[in-house]
Amino acid sequence: MTNNIPYKIFLSEEELPKQWHNIRAVMKELPDPFLNPATLEPCTADDLRAVFCDELVAQELNTTDLYIDIPQEIRDFYKMYRPSPVVRAYNLEKRLGTPAKIYYKFEGQNTSGSHKLNSAAAQVYYAKQQGLTHLTTETGAGQWGTALAMACAFYGVDLNVFMVKVSAEQKPQRKAVIQTYGASVTPSPSNTTEIGRKILAENPGTGGSLGCAISEAMEVALKTDNCRYVLGSVLNHVLVHQTIIGQEAKAALDKYGIQPDMIIGCAGGGSNLGGLISPFMEGKIKGENDIEFIAVEPASCPSLTRGRYALDFGDTGQTTPLMRMYTLGSGFMPSPNHAGGLRYHGMSPIISKLYHDGYLTARSVEQTKVFDAATVFAQSEGTLPAPESSHAIRVAIDEALKCKETGEEKTILFGLTGTGFFDMTAYTAYLDGTMTDYIPTDEDLQKGFDSLPQQG
Amino acid sequence: MTNNIPYKIFLSEEELPKQWHNIRAVMKELPDPFLNPATLEPCTADDLRAVFCDELVAQELNTTDLYIDIPQEIRDFYKMYRPSPVVRAYNLEKRLGTPAKIYYKFEGQNTSGSHKLNSAAAQVYYAKQQGLTHLTTETGAGQWGTALAMACAFYGVDLNVFMVKVSAEQKPQRKAVIQTYGASVTPSPSNTTEIGRKILAENPGTGGSLGCAISEAMEVALKTDNCRYVLGSVLNHVLVHQTIIGQEAKAALDKYGIQPDMIIGCAGGGSNLGGLISPFMEGKIKGENDIEFIAVEPASCPSLTRGRYALDFGDTGQTTPLMRMYTLGSGFMPSPNHAGGLRYHGMSPIISKLYHDGYLTARSVEQTKVFDAATVFAQSEGTLPAPESSHAIRVAIDEALKCKETGEEKTILFGLTGTGFFDMTAYTAYLDGTMTDYIPTDEDLQKGFDSLPQQG
Repeated sequence: MTNNIPYKIFLSEEELPKQWHNIRAVMKELPDPFLNPATLEPCTADDLRAVFCDELVAQELNTTDLYIDIPQEIRDFYKMYRPSPVVRAYNLEKRLGTPAKIYYKFEGQNTSGSHKLNSAAAQVYYAKQQGLTHLTTETGAGQWGTALAMACAFYGVDLNVFMVKVSAEQKPQRKAVIQTYGASVTPSPSNTTEIGRKILAENPGTGGSLGCAISEAMEVALKTDNCRYVLGSVLNHVLVHQTIIGQEAKAALDKYGIQPDMIIGCAGGGSNLGGLISPFMEGKIKGENDIEFIAVEPASCPSLTRGRYALDFGDTGQTTPLMRMYTLGSGFMPSPNHAGGLRYHGMSPIISKLYHDGYLTARSVEQTKVFDAATVFAQSEGTLPAPESSHAIRVAIDEALKCKETGEEKTILFGLTGTGFFDMTAYTAYLDGTMTDYIPTDEDLQKGFDSLPQQG
Repeated sequence: MTNNIPYKIFLSEEELPKQWHNIRAVMKELPDPFLNPATLEPCTADDLRAVFCDELVAQELNTTDLYIDIPQEIRDFYKMYRPSPVVRAYNLEKRLGTPAKIYYKFEGQNTSGSHKLNSAAAQVYYAKQQGLTHLTTETGAGQWGTALAMACAFYGVDLNVFMVKVSAEQKPQRKAVIQTYGASVTPSPSNTTEIGRKILAENPGTGGSLGCAISEAMEVALKTDNCRYVLGSVLNHVLVHQTIIGQEAKAALDKYGIQPDMIIGCAGGGSNLGGLISPFMEGKIKGENDIEFIAVEPASCPSLTRGRYALDFGDTGQTTPLMRMYTLGSGFMPSPNHAGGLRYHGMSPIISKLYHDGYLTARSVEQTKVFDAATVFAQSEGTLPAPESSHAIRVAIDEALKCKETGEEKTILFGLTGTGFFDMTAYTAYLDGTMTDYIPTDEDLQKGFDSLPQQG
């Protein structure tokens, strides 16, 4: 093909990055600190250590080190599935007839099927180092639960996954994968926790929610010796771990002298997007490049494009520290017809701050158009994309088609965060023509905003 | 880790093999030719061209060229997911505490989830070159149907997949993947063919069988203009396409001066095993190496270890040419409790001949032990293996544990043909303890042998 750029740019194992990237160290203004909801004072390390393990707390609060060393043991874990390729989408370009050059960083080539494993590996390693023997977490669709179960099997740490009951029932395959890796799965709400029993008493037939599963997982972590709770997105330390994506992508592109004009990522909690863009964003902040960064979110859960930059809780139970972020309010619930993931009410505080300060833009897309893009991608590039990732594909295709009109040869990089093997119910709805779109009205959004705490 | 062999040995895109390997060119005795069942004379190219496209017929009958060029267009398709890595199973070795060095060639990193795509790409390309516009095939579990749908989407050829009705109902996800790539799926038996209507009239509630789906697909291919039938295993040309696996594996190992002591592959129809071992088998035939080749099959469908080397039909409908192969008889049906794939009654004529002449050995394994091995592998190496591939894992682990006893540092290579994402029903049965083993009695096997045609 053109100019000898291979279909897949792989780094060698020796080129696997030795450090994560911490964008906060170069941001001109930092995100606001987390606030203790009882005192409204900034959270201290001690506040956080009750819930998270020590090293993760240190990373969470680290705003000064641009690079954080990746321990050798984590690099050895990464070597099982990394470096992941940057792929030149030659066949997609051909199908679109675009002069644009399209690249994607592909994170789906591991059994968890997504980038989630990058942080799971780190979090379990640090827990093990601290002598912890148990971890708890929640999972909805199951990608995070799978990733964490894989890491726990590897490092020898017990794991209890609280899986939203309706997901556990509708996705028995995901549940079985988690169990194959030796983790126990508790459909939530359960009668194993106080909060679970309370919710069950009040709503005997409930299918559960992510907020409830988080509350149960946190309760067990706090009550169990040598146990902590772990979370797969939103938080600063998770975003730092995900910068392995951007570090590799930048090294791979640099190898061939490729400079992207735009970088596109889907945004739910924001950690994959943040991980992809961080090393490139450093240059933008320093005035060394003028890359256009685009966050893509579902029209049905538009935290960046229609949310408020406000102090809010991370969970629907309103038990976490307060974070300043773009949010729809912790009481916001996306429509049940939304099939494409990225359902979180808020957005990573780092991403929120960068967006607020104008370093990245955001777009929302409707799900039928997302699945249109997913299908075009699958048929031309081979890989069946996750619905979440397909939000980024949608905008990458839109931009490539603009180039077709203007004749511009833009270089586009997007994040292909995962594969869609466990999302075939959504694909079937799309194929059957029964998938519908949903855009919340201003009144719908107001209900979520009403759940925001009083702003200080 | 030890001696600087990376976890994953990747070839570069330039190192992607330019030729397939055709072991028949060096075999001291060739497999018997296919016989026309009506005349009992060797099949001519003309006999085969009614069903298969011309270039595939030429490859099927080619016993003289050791190498067959891979057209550039097929190499371009391969570049979307190849070269595939040879992985050093450092973590499995550690978990087993073995001095053996274990490598596996991993074919699961594409959306079809298996090696099947290697032949699908070639078969659809040649069909397109010949001006064909339609293809038909059958699929059971769905891997072959998925692979073919991906290739047909890429090259722009219409595809109708006859999917065993019970599979289409039990695996709606697989069906949806095939449809996402634009192929039509017809649950078989259907009322779209004469044979389907006949079977439905005789057995109104039947869930179908692979044999019936083959018959329907062949009927449609014969009655439709510009249409041919394609098959995913057993035949010589399929095995030739699968030698891309062995060609890459040998190049990757040669790069690091690694010489395997044994090569292990699972065997259903035999094409993946044949593809993996061919380039190494050449050396064995020529007396240049003494590698131990091991075919692993399920105890419930033991064509090599308990079958007969006989002339038999390829399908249960007894419509194909007669092939001399190890077979349980086309009337043999594996127990319905068998969850691990590899259900074919016969074995590739090439593999059968090599086995008959003592170049490779065979073992049968019970499925609960296969899933024991699959679980150990998943937990240590990360990747969730397909049940089929896990037959090879079982024997690789057994051999590594023998090395632990003897202290031998054998180098073991096995084929990891695919991933198990769509096999979680079987994994769940294993986890629940409801999975059972089945070894056919001699009387059970006799029923299959009774279906063999009279031997000439």
